[in-house]
Amino acid sequence: MTRSETEPPPLTYAAAGVDDEAARRFVERIRPLARSTHRPEVLAGVGPFAGLFRLGAYREPVLVASTDSVGTKVKIAALMGRYDTIGIDLVNQSVNDILTVGAEPLFFLDYIASATLSEDEKAALVAGVASACREAGCALIGGETATMPDLYAPGDFDFVGFIVGVVERDAIIDGSRIREGDALLALPSSGLHTNGYSLARRVFSVGVGGDPAAERARLERVYPELSVSLGEALLMPHRSYLRELRPLFSHLKGIAHITGGGAIEGNVARMLPEGLAARIDRSAWEVPAIFRLIQREGNVPEEEMWRTFNMGLGLVFAVDPADVAALRSSVPEALVVGEVVRAEGQERVRVEYGA
Amino acid sequence: MTRSETEPPPLTYAAAGVDDEAARRFVERIRPLARSTHRPEVLAGVGPFAGLFRLGAYREPVLVASTDSVGTKVKIAALMGRYDTIGIDLVNQSVNDILTVGAEPLFFLDYIASATLSEDEKAALVAGVASACREAGCALIGGETATMPDLYAPGDFDFVGFIVGVVERDAIIDGSRIREGDALLALPSSGLHTNGYSLARRVFSVGVGGDPAAERARLERVYPELSVSLGEALLMPHRSYLRELRPLFSHLKGIAHITGGGAIEGNVARMLPEGLAARIDRSAWEVPAIFRLIQREGNVPEEEMWRTFNMGLGLVFAVDPADVAALRSSVPEALVVGEVVRAEGQERVRVEYGA
Repeated sequence: MTRSETEPPPLTYAAAGVDDEAARRFVERIRPLARSTHRPEVLAGVGPFAGLFRLGAYREPVLVASTDSVGTKVKIAALMGRYDTIGIDLVNQSVNDILTVGAEPLFFLDYIASATLSEDEKAALVAGVASACREAGCALIGGETATMPDLYAPGDFDFVGFIVGVVERDAIIDGSRIREGDALLALPSSGLHTNGYSLARRVFSVGVGGDPAAERARLERVYPELSVSLGEALLMPHRSYLRELRPLFSHLKGIAHITGGGAIEGNVARMLPEGLAARIDRSAWEVPAIFRLIQREGNVPEEEMWRTFNMGLGLVFAVDPADVAALRSSVPEALVVGEVVRAEGQERVRVEYGA
Repeated sequence: MTRSETEPPPLTYAAAGVDDEAARRFVERIRPLARSTHRPEVLAGVGPFAGLFRLGAYREPVLVASTDSVGTKVKIAALMGRYDTIGIDLVNQSVNDILTVGAEPLFFLDYIASATLSEDEKAALVAGVASACREAGCALIGGETATMPDLYAPGDFDFVGFIVGVVERDAIIDGSRIREGDALLALPSSGLHTNGYSLARRVFSVGVGGDPAAERARLERVYPELSVSLGEALLMPHRSYLRELRPLFSHLKGIAHITGGGAIEGNVARMLPEGLAARIDRSAWEVPAIFRLIQREGNVPEEEMWRTFNMGLGLVFAVDPADVAALRSSVPEALVVGEVVRAEGQERVRVEYGA
């Protein structure tokens, strides 16, 4: 018996599912996308191991950072084979997270992990990121595209974003100036944004490991109350509120981004100082059809809907009642949805009819 | 037939696999871990949607950012039920990435995604992050713990880090001062660090979807050439080089972190200016036993080993030959492994015997 007969076949990294050569090609391919987002502060051509960004002139700069994924909305994107919009979700949710303290975006990094996504699919993900970065004036200065066999099932991926912004220390919006009687205004959401997808997927049995063709067919259904297919409604990108709110920062006393962790009630509570509470009037806006459809199809209890989904509000902010008219004339979309009241007991936020 | 008989059973977010109440408890539990890393620049108690960090006094600050995951090393951690060290990998690889341009860490954010990890397991992950952050003087100012049913298999998780550091613009190490004849020094790695795990897992058939008990038994084997079990050798944390290199930054002309994307050859090439190449002498250090074991068990071709693994070098840096003696006396671990030569043809880095 010769030695070669007893040896296992030679193993290579590529045979193990990781193709370094392809990875290098991919980095070259997405370079122009990243470059399209660059601002003069980006030091290009330096540091292959990191992104460099020269901070401009600030009196007392405070850096503001946040990280998040788009949750299992990736499952909807993968089923629909639509990879070009979910990067918009990724950037916009981060932009909204840091604008809650009055910060403007500086730069962004993304992380894509999958076992089998094609180069085209990954490039579409980055293209979505780049387009939202350009819109926000935020430089895409780095990222990682990880190939992870055995961790992600075929077609699956995770998609994570990191943002850094800046705010002058004396311009931080921290809720401390909120007073009893302040008005609560809101801007509409564009859909589920990036929260509640594990519940929504269960309701419609999509992305839960069933037959992909059947799951796809369910996403293609056009319910009469939606103007688009279920899949398109669920994939609607998370909108950014930067353009609307940036000019108003100095008038905003507190901003809550309505995301996971309790939706309206949980997130509005987070912006309120001790001793104050919020009453929000459910009749001040119409809950969009997609939420009522989810509720009906899943027989989801009303309170569970309000705890899980944004129910039509993407952002809630507190302002002096004297500023309401001026704010609404500059941002006509903004609705008065409630007011700040004295806290009684443990309850911080009550969403009710006729607040 | 009453209406209740035709309705599906009520669905809740918790029934769909996402328990917001548990998520809130978890955030409270890890708060002291994050706080243990804080520096005076961290503005605590502000911004529930983002982390805030006051930048100190710099002449011309350049922010340096990087993101990465620990790759499929998570598979080894999960199989061994060891969640307390992999966070060290996550932080240290990021610290090393940004120190390549001479940056010092400021703050860090982590992202944990899984479907079924327990609170204890997730808290151990964050504890590892916090301990390495304290060691690096880096503040853990945010993070996200995502519960993603249907995306991650039971026991699986992904673990992503994001770091921001700072360097004065005129102190950036960018390789531009590297000259022909400069010495190449290296610091030893502590194991595979965070690269090549998909190949190593294939070689030993661990974390590839086989019977977990059998995979675990293979990790428990103690090979004669290793002083510890295979699993312990594979899980050895990625070491940080910050303590050793920070005092020397002004003497270092270029730094390559030996990670994915071509290991020694690929990463040393990245730090070299046009027209220059590197010759590295394989006999200058002994390749650690774990790499020879992987090679033997997997029958991995020699060149594939050098393309995929760090082979014992964690970091390579270029210095003036006149500085070598002083550098080696302050960092005795540093080995002279090669030199900078004129580039001939396409080849940038040659790793050979007797360079």
